Amino acid sequence: MTPKTPEPNLPEGSFMRILILGGDGYLGWPTAMRFSARGHEVHVVDNELRRRAHEQAGTDSLTPTRRLPERVAAWRELTGNEIGVTLGDLTDWDVVEAVFDSFGPDAVVHYGEMPSAPYSMKDREHAVFTQSNNVVGTLHVLYAIRDLAPDAHLVKLGTMGEYGTPNIDIEEGFIEVRHNGRSDYLPFPKLPGSIYHLSKVHDSHNLHFACRVWGLRATDLHQGVVYGIRTEETALDDRLLTRFDYDDVFGTALNRFCLQAVIGHPLTVYGAGGQTRGYLNIEDTLRCVELAVANPAQAGEYRVFNQFTQLYSVLQLAELVQKAGAEIGMDVTVHPIDNPRVEAEQHYYNAAHTKLLDLGLRPHLLDETLIESMFSTIERFKDRVIVDHILPKDRWRPIRPR
Amino acid sequence: MTPKTPEPNLPEGSFMRILILGGDGYLGWPTAMRFSARGHEVHVVDNELRRRAHEQAGTDSLTPTRRLPERVAAWRELTGNEIGVTLGDLTDWDVVEAVFDSFGPDAVVHYGEMPSAPYSMKDREHAVFTQSNNVVGTLHVLYAIRDLAPDAHLVKLGTMGEYGTPNIDIEEGFIEVRHNGRSDYLPFPKLPGSIYHLSKVHDSHNLHFACRVWGLRATDLHQGVVYGIRTEETALDDRLLTRFDYDDVFGTALNRFCLQAVIGHPLTVYGAGGQTRGYLNIEDTLRCVELAVANPAQAGEYRVFNQFTQLYSVLQLAELVQKAGAEIGMDVTVHPIDNPRVEAEQHYYNAAHTKLLDLGLRPHLLDETLIESMFSTIERFKDRVIVDHILPKDRWRPIRPR
Repeated sequence: MTPKTPEPNLPEGSFMRILILGGDGYLGWPTAMRFSARGHEVHVVDNELRRRAHEQAGTDSLTPTRRLPERVAAWRELTGNEIGVTLGDLTDWDVVEAVFDSFGPDAVVHYGEMPSAPYSMKDREHAVFTQSNNVVGTLHVLYAIRDLAPDAHLVKLGTMGEYGTPNIDIEEGFIEVRHNGRSDYLPFPKLPGSIYHLSKVHDSHNLHFACRVWGLRATDLHQGVVYGIRTEETALDDRLLTRFDYDDVFGTALNRFCLQAVIGHPLTVYGAGGQTRGYLNIEDTLRCVELAVANPAQAGEYRVFNQFTQLYSVLQLAELVQKAGAEIGMDVTVHPIDNPRVEAEQHYYNAAHTKLLDLGLRPHLLDETLIESMFSTIERFKDRVIVDHILPKDRWRPIRPR
Repeated sequence: MTPKTPEPNLPEGSFMRILILGGDGYLGWPTAMRFSARGHEVHVVDNELRRRAHEQAGTDSLTPTRRLPERVAAWRELTGNEIGVTLGDLTDWDVVEAVFDSFGPDAVVHYGEMPSAPYSMKDREHAVFTQSNNVVGTLHVLYAIRDLAPDAHLVKLGTMGEYGTPNIDIEEGFIEVRHNGRSDYLPFPKLPGSIYHLSKVHDSHNLHFACRVWGLRATDLHQGVVYGIRTEETALDDRLLTRFDYDDVFGTALNRFCLQAVIGHPLTVYGAGGQTRGYLNIEDTLRCVELAVANPAQAGEYRVFNQFTQLYSVLQLAELVQKAGAEIGMDVTVHPIDNPRVEAEQHYYNAAHTKLLDLGLRPHLLDETLIESMFSTIERFKDRVIVDHILPKDRWRPIRPR
């Protein structure tokens, strides 16, 4: 039983060897299945960092998730398709070298980083770990491509959070700056809001350099906040479920709100709730990554796609969830709490996101039907919720005597 | 015998506790002596990385340099002033914590990084070392200030090389960007040209964040290429000499040209020689750092000063050295060699540098007299020159089959 492939991106017969770094994650695992379902040869690498972080914190995914070897076995059983697995760490060069040597990728989809702002802001150790893990792992990937797979196209997950909230329209990675009668097309200035977001800014500069100086080809997907719990492939079998995090460290706004609604917890809006960000459905993430892989950057080209489909403020999202809940008889309350972050709670925000649309993205827009379908999946697993770990614990600006 | 202090920066009696990170270096050691001569309490930290790198490469400073304990002993003998010493590594938190705890600095002058572009471009290991060493060491310094000395002013050495060579005028750290009818004052876009320069860009973003989010105060000195061999204090006694590097890894343009002229080696201009950069005299570095320390940033303020006094192309510098040599009867030839770097050899370059002038900097401008005085110091030590290590060995873009 192979899932249907309604939107093949590649010409018939144009199959690729695709390496998915971070292939055990919320997005990495569904991405691996998607490319495998399309007939590509897929290999995933993961160090199971997220699983260990959850264990240490006493938290867990809402959905029960199998470990990678079981996941790929279930996938093989259901579809007949093989996905290769390496359990290893990108900061270990021997791991990276062995994978590139043996697999010889045409495309490298790089989700393999520590992805949480709150995690990075816990304390000095978490901050240093986040930046060294992400920067060193990504440097290894760049050197591996340069020296072992120079024609491979790197599709790297960045974040819209690299831009922060400037008072001008955000462009896709670069901006024409006119100044004193001259002009240049330059990297868009970055105002990242956490140690984690900083690590992604560092990566972006390193990628740009690798393209300019070594001639690598890279697409940096500056992604918004992803929501959703289901992709075409995860829906095939519970053994293929992807993770769904709602805790204070790895959870994200809309997913957490939906879970709070289901368990009767007030929706915890941070501060005034005017914080506006780009959002997208998990299905659209997969589609965007497919589009990037199918339309590679040129040798020497570093391009940035802003990967989101809609802008929402946190308060708008909470109200949307409240409304969707009301329609099915749920009594959902919204409860503003002290903002643990240091961020503008009312600000200008407008960001370009046409490049992926131009390549053919047809967004799944957020509506009450989608939210209700998330409610029903969450409902299935709600006895797994660990309520103690929903509220934020760590503050961006520690309170201390000065 | 205390050196005269012709330009006291601080009001009488306003003495400070000044921590110099990288206090064994070309600039760090003279800076330590300068603040000590002015009556401040000075403590230096260094891991002797440069000394080890030289030993491993079979290279050395032209000038013989004593190790820190001998340097501070000689300084004490000559001036009666104490300089404290910690031999330790900024990537070791225990070292950083102990120094901040015991010394309690009012100002932190941070030179303590791996400072060489060619070193960072040798291979993957050197690249990863450079970025983790610089980023982690600087993160430790930021956390130490945040948690142990929150009012201390960080004066951090950045580099003009962070900007690269954009086709617009370079401003001091930030630029007013007008776009679609709106405007914002944003970080100046960066186009660094090596893995080392990238590490400094990463630092700049981290510093900006620490000021925005934690309320730290920091001055980021985006310094040009420093030349010169003598400061008021190094001239007191040969035991106080600072290092003078001319080799392929740690040497810089004008210093290397002067040395080549003295030993009768052609001046090795990379490529067309149109690469234009900001330069400054080592005496002006000390003065700029003093001005920054004496006029601290406000709490929460991240400011960038472009620290150079004159712009030269590499070819102009070579011709200046040639001319100065001719005046004293030296036959100096200029020999273009294949450029090992990936950089524009003809480009627009104009960079603002008024902030330090506004604070009172009176530049020592480059002239033939200065070059001739460098010649005569180099002459004293020319039997120490290791000729085999003058030409570049490592290429920015490795030659390999693709």
